[in-house]
Amino acid sequence: MFEARFQSFEESDQRSATAPRVAALRAELARRSLAGYIVPRADRHQDEYLPPAEERLAWLTGFTGSAGVAIVLAARAAIFVDGRYTLQVRDQVDGNIFAVEHLVDAPPESWLEANLTAGARLGYDPWLHTVDGAEKLAQACTAAGATLVASEPNPIDALWSDRPASPLGPVTLHDLRYAGEDSAAKLKRVGAEMAKLKADALVISNPQALAWTFNIRGADIPHVPLTLGFAILRPEGRPALYIDGRKLANAVRHGLEEIADLREPTEFAPDLAALGGARADVHLDQATAADALAKIVIEAGGKVARRPDPIALMKAVKNNTEIAGARAAHERDGAAVVRFLAWFDREAPGGKLTEIDAAAALESFRRDTGALKDISFPTISGAGPNGAIVHYRVTRRSNRRIVPGELFLIDSGAQYEDGTTDITRTIAVGKPSSEARARFTRVLKGHIAIATASFPDGTTGAQIDSFARRWLWAAGLDFDHGTGHGVGSYLSVHEGPASISKRGTVALKRGMILSNEPGYYKPGAYGIRIENLVLVIAAAPVPGGEKPLNAFETLTLAPIDRRLIEPSLVTQEEIRWLDAYHARVSDELGAKVDAETRAWLDQATRPFGAAPRRRPSR
Amino acid sequence: MFEARFQSFEESDQRSATAPRVAALRAELARRSLAGYIVPRADRHQDEYLPPAEERLAWLTGFTGSAGVAIVLAARAAIFVDGRYTLQVRDQVDGNIFAVEHLVDAPPESWLEANLTAGARLGYDPWLHTVDGAEKLAQACTAAGATLVASEPNPIDALWSDRPASPLGPVTLHDLRYAGEDSAAKLKRVGAEMAKLKADALVISNPQALAWTFNIRGADIPHVPLTLGFAILRPEGRPALYIDGRKLANAVRHGLEEIADLREPTEFAPDLAALGGARADVHLDQATAADALAKIVIEAGGKVARRPDPIALMKAVKNNTEIAGARAAHERDGAAVVRFLAWFDREAPGGKLTEIDAAAALESFRRDTGALKDISFPTISGAGPNGAIVHYRVTRRSNRRIVPGELFLIDSGAQYEDGTTDITRTIAVGKPSSEARARFTRVLKGHIAIATASFPDGTTGAQIDSFARRWLWAAGLDFDHGTGHGVGSYLSVHEGPASISKRGTVALKRGMILSNEPGYYKPGAYGIRIENLVLVIAAAPVPGGEKPLNAFETLTLAPIDRRLIEPSLVTQEEIRWLDAYHARVSDELGAKVDAETRAWLDQATRPFGAAPRRRPSR
Repeated sequence: MFEARFQSFEESDQRSATAPRVAALRAELARRSLAGYIVPRADRHQDEYLPPAEERLAWLTGFTGSAGVAIVLAARAAIFVDGRYTLQVRDQVDGNIFAVEHLVDAPPESWLEANLTAGARLGYDPWLHTVDGAEKLAQACTAAGATLVASEPNPIDALWSDRPASPLGPVTLHDLRYAGEDSAAKLKRVGAEMAKLKADALVISNPQALAWTFNIRGADIPHVPLTLGFAILRPEGRPALYIDGRKLANAVRHGLEEIADLREPTEFAPDLAALGGARADVHLDQATAADALAKIVIEAGGKVARRPDPIALMKAVKNNTEIAGARAAHERDGAAVVRFLAWFDREAPGGKLTEIDAAAALESFRRDTGALKDISFPTISGAGPNGAIVHYRVTRRSNRRIVPGELFLIDSGAQYEDGTTDITRTIAVGKPSSEARARFTRVLKGHIAIATASFPDGTTGAQIDSFARRWLWAAGLDFDHGTGHGVGSYLSVHEGPASISKRGTVALKRGMILSNEPGYYKPGAYGIRIENLVLVIAAAPVPGGEKPLNAFETLTLAPIDRRLIEPSLVTQEEIRWLDAYHARVSDELGAKVDAETRAWLDQATRPFGAAPRRRPSR
Repeated sequence: MFEARFQSFEESDQRSATAPRVAALRAELARRSLAGYIVPRADRHQDEYLPPAEERLAWLTGFTGSAGVAIVLAARAAIFVDGRYTLQVRDQVDGNIFAVEHLVDAPPESWLEANLTAGARLGYDPWLHTVDGAEKLAQACTAAGATLVASEPNPIDALWSDRPASPLGPVTLHDLRYAGEDSAAKLKRVGAEMAKLKADALVISNPQALAWTFNIRGADIPHVPLTLGFAILRPEGRPALYIDGRKLANAVRHGLEEIADLREPTEFAPDLAALGGARADVHLDQATAADALAKIVIEAGGKVARRPDPIALMKAVKNNTEIAGARAAHERDGAAVVRFLAWFDREAPGGKLTEIDAAAALESFRRDTGALKDISFPTISGAGPNGAIVHYRVTRRSNRRIVPGELFLIDSGAQYEDGTTDITRTIAVGKPSSEARARFTRVLKGHIAIATASFPDGTTGAQIDSFARRWLWAAGLDFDHGTGHGVGSYLSVHEGPASISKRGTVALKRGMILSNEPGYYKPGAYGIRIENLVLVIAAAPVPGGEKPLNAFETLTLAPIDRRLIEPSLVTQEEIRWLDAYHARVSDELGAKVDAETRAWLDQATRPFGAAPRRRPSR
């Protein structure tokens, strides 16, 4: 069968190992005269995926979810996770040691106010919290009459005897034929933004921004081709780039030295302090800059301005080369996905496939393209009730057989040098229930409403998010996640600053790539999600129109399962969209797949309402 | 003809009087060692409509718009207004004295940063700025090396020799048959909110909140039945209510003394200071509390918490009595509006009516109900190009004849003791252009999309605002205002905290009343707006639905002009809504109007697509 190389299906089980670790931490805290310590799931850059050396929360508590915080006091400890992880946390974490709290409804700050005693000193690692985050914690401590104390080095690093080494993934130069703009030109544009902001210095703390600005990619963390590092930009002079020299081959080093001063990460803090000493006004990225950075600048006498990183918006607006790359990546990826879908339709009715089989097969078809660098996130492969778990990750233990009569949801993506992809398809195995068909159709109507929306320049994602929900709402249904997130260009599959969601308050600009992924989830039964990536483009001009209008071009190419569409719920206009989309999928991918897949594709993309054609004999 | 009693069509012209006033102010500033003074259009409660004694900005600059700020320095002065008032400000204000700046794009803060010299002291009246507003000004001064200085009494009050007296409108008790909940019960609910917030004291600075909490109404400002005053609530003991005793007849005084300690306004500041002296944690309304209040508390040693006023949300959610009152008010108002529309259709084709005639006639029909307390705002009566001015106010000078071939837009409302109304109709005079019909139809489609929306509990107005825009967007069009605002119950026609707009981040709760008023404006040509008030109600349950759903019940009753609907642009569902709405209008109002109006109403509300019926002979 197929093999997955970029995704593990193993489960972490450290539950029984955590009691001595917590005890050791408490002893260390006593030595430091600390009443407690707070341990977030975070690295120095607030990365979404962490290198193993940064998995302190998992080491201490056993919890491996993507968001969480633990607080250990002398007599009690708690772990805070959100609604996605309430089941997983009880499985992975020893409830005798950690009380489980809700990260949003009963956040760490409230817990601290209630549990800290007056005069207590709570320790934290200023490298793992943003400035805003540390401020909130400090306020909570103050409310309890306690004090928040930066305490370095992180006590866990000393106790964690077999802590993995920090990653040293090689840095590569991102070729101009993919990047489309050289680093010098980007630095000039960033400099103009700095001038507008009257910044004496801008610190790049977000590795995605670092990668974009210097046209570099790395291999420090799974699924995202980032290198961990920092940079300091000044209005005059060359930028300073702080990357471990061991990650730089000579050719890469020479390339980077043309545009930047390469400095070791150990020099970063002293350089920041020197800026502070020169009374500089240092701009930090509000979303990712560690509290430690602000402390260093301020303690040396400088000023700190916390702002949205100006690079985030520049990076989100793709240039023509990146757009061409995205289209090519989506054709390549679409062909692999179509091979997968055809294979799945042949194999699944036999009832023998598992979720892991499907994830491995899809990765394998993508590897066959010869261009796959990584998957862009662990594939969500959920059969029946597992499909209803929005952030499901299949493991050997959870792995489910895909049986006829169920829906199967698969959400996956690829990293190619020319572009990052992200696609979800929901597939009927056997005969779907009429309820599932009705709900799939409402999700599809929402997907089409986004795909066909046109909206004036300046419109934000928050303003159109509900277009994806209206038909679900009308049936008393909804989905509990945003409709879409930004996607990078051979970078993170989750990219700011724009999104199609309640929180999407940044205007959608031409050149942005976002996902369009409404869904519906029936706990214990099935999940539905239909996801394509879309590119913001200029809409075709309308006679008499007064506003510059934008629209979406759908980039993702793969059939949507027509067996799940209830004809009485779709309008003629919606069918026209579906047929045009399928015709495009067929045109663009037909020549790129084998004959057997092609025959399947012909069926899957025929006009809606047309009878199935006989399969051609080979 | 008809007469308007609640609205003046006169124009303020103080332009030529302002030069000596500015000179006198500069002399006074020199005496106070101030480099300048900032003069907002505001009173102590941040009211929307001001009593004449508070019109300091108009006295100083001549400008009478509803939003603006002036800054007078020794050598220069500027007035800041938003896009609505760029024409009006040039007309009313002497450009040799005041530079005109854009309130949003080039705000006072930026101007101060650029124009204040280091060491300068800028004076402000802390009673006329919110705490947040004063903070922003102080930051701007600091950035210029200058200082913001509270300077009382307001220098204008000393110079303004014929300044009107402060209003002493009589206070009335708002009867329980309209209020639906007595003040003791309301105070108990507010007390529970205070306990949640751990507030030692809550200051009511918003006169709308004051009116709601104590079930009182007043006559201090035009169009809104408010009395100006403050209150201080404590977790224990009786509230203190600060209202000028001259506004209280004995019966009213006795009624209020049952629930509150009545104190004179002069006692308010000392009482606040006493709270500060007792180290109390005093909660102020972020939106309306004057900076002076925070200063008094803090200087006396207390703490201030700035928060959204908890009363605002309670007031916005109408109880069953208020809802029944609103329905009754809308039937009464609808009958008056239908009389107006029938009259207008008879008279307007003659080409002799003016905008003022129409406004006066409408007010007169409302007065005929015998229940009209005031109009809820100055009627916007705009023919042809005047209809395109969103906040148009007709004056004797601007008054336009309504001529066939034009659209006429009339936006008006009434204050009745049982409810406040607000309705806009756009009427075809003669034969409308096909462009106007197409655009009216797109506005109507948006109006219907809001009227028929259903949405889960917790949905905000921001999430549904774009439903009103989608069909305009598709044609490259839009409108530059929110889709809807909250409306009070015999209170302000503009009420927070919820709205249907980009800024509407408060959940829509059952019992809230909002406007549904999409529009389209073609500058120099015509304006379109279709406005009904809607009540948030529980939606009819949907089989299989999982979420509690809300929907809107349309309260406003008056025909929508079918002559402006382009049949090819509306769906069968939209026509079904229109026909059902018109049938309801006919059923509920038919028996309430005279025979001639009834005949007109029958025509205006017949099913869409049906041929006009012959007019019955009288």
